[in-house]
Amino acid sequence: MNQDTICALATANGMGAIGIIRISGEKSFEIVNAVFEGKNLTKVASHTVQYGFIKDDYEVIDEVMVSVFHAPKTFTTENSVEISFHGSPYIAKKILEVLIKNGARMAKAGEFTMRAFMNGRIDLSQAESIADLIASENEASRKVALNQLKGGISNEISFLRNDLLNFTSLIELELDFAEEDVEFADRAALKSLLSKIEEKLNSLIESFQYGNAIKNGTAVAIIGKPNAGKSTLLNALLKEERAIVSNIAGTTRDTIEEILHIKGHAFRLIDTAGLRETSDEIEAIGVKKAKEKVENAEVLIYLIDASTQDFSEDIDMLKSLLREDLKLIICATKIDEVIPDQYESIENVLRESITQEFDFIKISAVENQNIQDLKNELSSYVEQLKSEEGNVIITNQRHYEALQKSLTSVRKVEEAVNFQITTELLSYELRNALENLGEISGEFTNDEVLGNIFSKFCIGK
Amino acid sequence: MNQDTICALATANGMGAIGIIRISGEKSFEIVNAVFEGKNLTKVASHTVQYGFIKDDYEVIDEVMVSVFHAPKTFTTENSVEISFHGSPYIAKKILEVLIKNGARMAKAGEFTMRAFMNGRIDLSQAESIADLIASENEASRKVALNQLKGGISNEISFLRNDLLNFTSLIELELDFAEEDVEFADRAALKSLLSKIEEKLNSLIESFQYGNAIKNGTAVAIIGKPNAGKSTLLNALLKEERAIVSNIAGTTRDTIEEILHIKGHAFRLIDTAGLRETSDEIEAIGVKKAKEKVENAEVLIYLIDASTQDFSEDIDMLKSLLREDLKLIICATKIDEVIPDQYESIENVLRESITQEFDFIKISAVENQNIQDLKNELSSYVEQLKSEEGNVIITNQRHYEALQKSLTSVRKVEEAVNFQITTELLSYELRNALENLGEISGEFTNDEVLGNIFSKFCIGK
Repeated sequence: MNQDTICALATANGMGAIGIIRISGEKSFEIVNAVFEGKNLTKVASHTVQYGFIKDDYEVIDEVMVSVFHAPKTFTTENSVEISFHGSPYIAKKILEVLIKNGARMAKAGEFTMRAFMNGRIDLSQAESIADLIASENEASRKVALNQLKGGISNEISFLRNDLLNFTSLIELELDFAEEDVEFADRAALKSLLSKIEEKLNSLIESFQYGNAIKNGTAVAIIGKPNAGKSTLLNALLKEERAIVSNIAGTTRDTIEEILHIKGHAFRLIDTAGLRETSDEIEAIGVKKAKEKVENAEVLIYLIDASTQDFSEDIDMLKSLLREDLKLIICATKIDEVIPDQYESIENVLRESITQEFDFIKISAVENQNIQDLKNELSSYVEQLKSEEGNVIITNQRHYEALQKSLTSVRKVEEAVNFQITTELLSYELRNALENLGEISGEFTNDEVLGNIFSKFCIGK
Repeated sequence: MNQDTICALATANGMGAIGIIRISGEKSFEIVNAVFEGKNLTKVASHTVQYGFIKDDYEVIDEVMVSVFHAPKTFTTENSVEISFHGSPYIAKKILEVLIKNGARMAKAGEFTMRAFMNGRIDLSQAESIADLIASENEASRKVALNQLKGGISNEISFLRNDLLNFTSLIELELDFAEEDVEFADRAALKSLLSKIEEKLNSLIESFQYGNAIKNGTAVAIIGKPNAGKSTLLNALLKEERAIVSNIAGTTRDTIEEILHIKGHAFRLIDTAGLRETSDEIEAIGVKKAKEKVENAEVLIYLIDASTQDFSEDIDMLKSLLREDLKLIICATKIDEVIPDQYESIENVLRESITQEFDFIKISAVENQNIQDLKNELSSYVEQLKSEEGNVIITNQRHYEALQKSLTSVRKVEEAVNFQITTELLSYELRNALENLGEISGEFTNDEVLGNIFSKFCIGK
């Protein structure tokens, strides 16, 4: 148990009506009480709010409301206090200074959450979900993070892991009776458990592609020859977008992107700089530039001007851009300018030339026709990534890697059982698998991993 | 009494560990309870914190802590709730949406504070002080705002105003008995009260210059010929400055400025763009540019290179820049390069040519010599603005104007008494003075003034 009492600003940086400073640790009540004018905080009931003043010696720093939380029913399980003050960053600094003068110390990044983990209130994947929840920018990522906070991922694995632990104990018992050559652990039942675990791990691993789309959004490149209607399409797609995200600190990205939300999923439109202006008429998009954009994309929307006659250039361009794992949507634009026969023949020509599967959508962005079809296509692309069973979705790279390591070690256990390798080796492989399975929830982990996880948190979390 | 229940994000915009949504109004408990999974919020005790979940129908939006405050011991004096959630702007938006769906409405700018005023918990100057407190960026402005929040200004005036009100009642009584020609109000005592009020008003009005320095900082221009050592001085001044303010949102200013803090006071160094780099050697500062800078300054620090022989250009420049209300500090730089006799002669030459009072400081910024003298000079300039008596300081333009109007009307009352003008007119002037005196605390005000004051607040305050 950590002895220090820590403090930090818990609300976002900047001016607000209210700011919150959080204090946690054994001496929380004593330290805050020493600088508080109001009721005696060491004597008030838990989960109550007290009115008063924070003072530095005789000088009042601010009029505040102080919430008192008694261990263990607190975020960190330690005695905790929250000071609600007039939200000036300057006042925050003054209050933190006086708390530190009275025996608290500044919390490190993520230290409150780390304590909640260290003290056993939440497991590691729940701790990670708190950062995800705070960073959530859309419906899908909020839901997944919340589910993870409620223990979603850990529950999925911990039951199976407990069963495996029981087998391991029996096998280790066999080792103790090695000279008598007995078999406590039913090998058939162990095999059946292992294949159940393998199935579950596979399904969680598969969910990562969807999880990644949820957490980071799906990268979409819009490509087309000059005058193919890129800016018109972009404007039509973004028309209803209220861009709630764009003003939020910390969402700056490497390339200039517009974010499009469809049915709670985020789509990052790669490198749309200049596209919204009608500059695409003069923009001569080179193959090299197009390739760079498509390289980072999961979805390619390729625009073909239906009113032109020759598509050989487009086909050449498409062939040079395609990858097996790229979702391709070809949009015939300006269909209001051509007769139906013509755009049907376009589709035929394309199907003959492009071997990769693609969706063909006829759009006239000017009349906003079929823009909804395109949105539905994007949305169903993300939806089909969702694994069939279960609602637990992996969004975290660390979990993904731990699951893959677990799968490898579970397969080694299976081999050990199948090839009737020595009980010693089987026991070794089992311990290894248990350790890997325990990594997600933090049952097995090391300081370096923990440090790495929590250092990505902000101070105050 | 306003019937609506209002809600808004009360913490700063952006990501934080915790965000707070504030709800106020008669139906606060019912509305939040309708979306809360946990204890029945309509039945819990005041000033308690409840753990639970905010839901939209059956869907959990976030895990939260909810503080319940029963009228009238709340910020607005109305039933109030604070929801503490995982500080994602997206989650804030979702929670606000569900509250609005259940009968709350978004608060207007400053509406919580306006309700506190309308419901009589605080007066207008206290309401204004809340915005000042939140915006406070240094020790002096925090202290003044806090003092005002505690009723500092209103108290100063309200006693005197009450005495004046008593006299007014007596004078009005005389009007009722006009035919009998009696005098209920002792004219000598009234005169003595009026001069007391006048004195107090004068002292408050005088405090505004200091108050303004506190609230907005003191504008300082640093001027000198190329190579006079401006950038060196600037670097020396700012060396120990940790610039706590520079990262805070909302502090962008019209011109590029550096902020220097000395003994809790802020000094805004005007237009220091480029000065920190050693560009002053190539910068040919024209009289026009210098004049523009000095126009907005309260203090001019003029640098003269002591190692040169001819100061006629400097003297010409200075003469063209000076104003009566400008505090002038002339610094002889590079004194390490000259013998004492020389810089003494510089001072003599200057004193002969410049009629306006000035401080003469010899500095060698390279050796950091006497920089402290300069800082002390700046600090004592601000300190001497402080009025001799009383610790109530006017920082608000509206208060300043109301005080001046009050002073004018009090003088009119004095005239009316001195010249024994009719009781009707005296009564009229008294009512006028009372109204002006009541403007600061908001006893007399109109919707337009109120709207103007609160519209400058942010939503959530």
